[in-house]
Amino acid sequence: MKFNRIALIMAMEDEAKPIIQELGLDHKGKLISPLPMEYYEGTFNDLKIDLITSGKCDRFNVDHIGPQAAILNAASAIGRLRPDLIINPGTAGGFVQAGGEIGDVYLSYPMICYHDRRIPIPGFDAYGVGSYYCYDTRELAKDLNLKTGIVSTGSSLDYTDKDLDLIKSYGGVVKEMEAASIAWVADLYKIPFFAVKSITDLVDNSTPTEEEFLKNLTSASISLSREVVRIIKYLAG
Amino acid sequence: MKFNRIALIMAMEDEAKPIIQELGLDHKGKLISPLPMEYYEGTFNDLKIDLITSGKCDRFNVDHIGPQAAILNAASAIGRLRPDLIINPGTAGGFVQAGGEIGDVYLSYPMICYHDRRIPIPGFDAYGVGSYYCYDTRELAKDLNLKTGIVSTGSSLDYTDKDLDLIKSYGGVVKEMEAASIAWVADLYKIPFFAVKSITDLVDNSTPTEEEFLKNLTSASISLSREVVRIIKYLAG
Repeated sequence: MKFNRIALIMAMEDEAKPIIQELGLDHKGKLISPLPMEYYEGTFNDLKIDLITSGKCDRFNVDHIGPQAAILNAASAIGRLRPDLIINPGTAGGFVQAGGEIGDVYLSYPMICYHDRRIPIPGFDAYGVGSYYCYDTRELAKDLNLKTGIVSTGSSLDYTDKDLDLIKSYGGVVKEMEAASIAWVADLYKIPFFAVKSITDLVDNSTPTEEEFLKNLTSASISLSREVVRIIKYLAG
Repeated sequence: MKFNRIALIMAMEDEAKPIIQELGLDHKGKLISPLPMEYYEGTFNDLKIDLITSGKCDRFNVDHIGPQAAILNAASAIGRLRPDLIINPGTAGGFVQAGGEIGDVYLSYPMICYHDRRIPIPGFDAYGVGSYYCYDTRELAKDLNLKTGIVSTGSSLDYTDKDLDLIKSYGGVVKEMEAASIAWVADLYKIPFFAVKSITDLVDNSTPTEEEFLKNLTSASISLSREVVRIIKYLAG
């Protein structure tokens, strides 16, 4: 499949910085005023590249992260930019039990689920999990020597036992906070979508997620950038 | 404060039906194609009334409920309709310990929080809870003999111990699945917002939420409609 315009939809500015630098993207200000999303654009060969971060929360002075901001980011980016492929690069937690290691980079496949939308009414239970199909990344992963797996999204950086039970039930190997939300909006518009996730921490070891996350955010963002640039080169043909 | 155009942003069609009938709103089809939201419009005296439900999920054949769909609904409704007041009517869980009873109707005040966005990093922890301020509903509640309280939003119909701990920490008395998301988008656009929540079930009794919810959805939606119409009449002056 040949693409003309790729939107990279991202949460945190620190995750995005190395990609913005590597691809030489220009900061164009806010995507849509008065919304917080920051818009960067550029080209790679014949490929138009848009990168949108969810921007900063003025009140708490932190980046907008999580599923709610991701929905607003994706809907605004699609409305204004009409990309023909959406990629969500970001950092994430991995699982020792699934062979995950810090620094690994995963492509989502075959689907992206929610692990904290429990609605125990028939029909709504499956709706809550979502199970959004994503772009078939298997060839891309094979050619670039990356892992693939089911990405699992939730609103919290930590987890409850119920979260882990759900992740286990569908075989999730990457835990993060945005991909399923972007997958849903992309699916409504029938735009191909996949996530690229760089592992900052291991969910099923003894160190609290937040400690490992902060310690490894910079290095994981650099690995993420390296792989995103390889993916863009590959897609640009 | 005098309003000219009020948007009622709602999740489920069954919750909205009695309001649509009572106010005699016309179905105008989808709000924005290809998004799922259904758009109804009408007037009450000089007041323009828009009602938008989040529409149906074709894949699982259920209504779009929860924070993600609420973000998309609110952002789309504001983008297209530019209301000067947003109200989120809906059904919710109450708490026996807070004096809640099935059939009670609450107005949100003074704020709306999330109980399932745990991000244990300084700054992000408060961001996760959100604590969105809402329109001062105290006079309205007093004049219409309604309760007020802190509304708490999460992605699940059921709850974990961590959810309940957080709700207790900020004194939440109403548990539901959309209000904080709509509050955030309304706040970004500086549009006044409040929620109106009719209690279908009591979180802190022994009956599972889903059983009580389904049993009381119709009667709670009728109470909700009655109070929403009273509120509209009051605001129309």
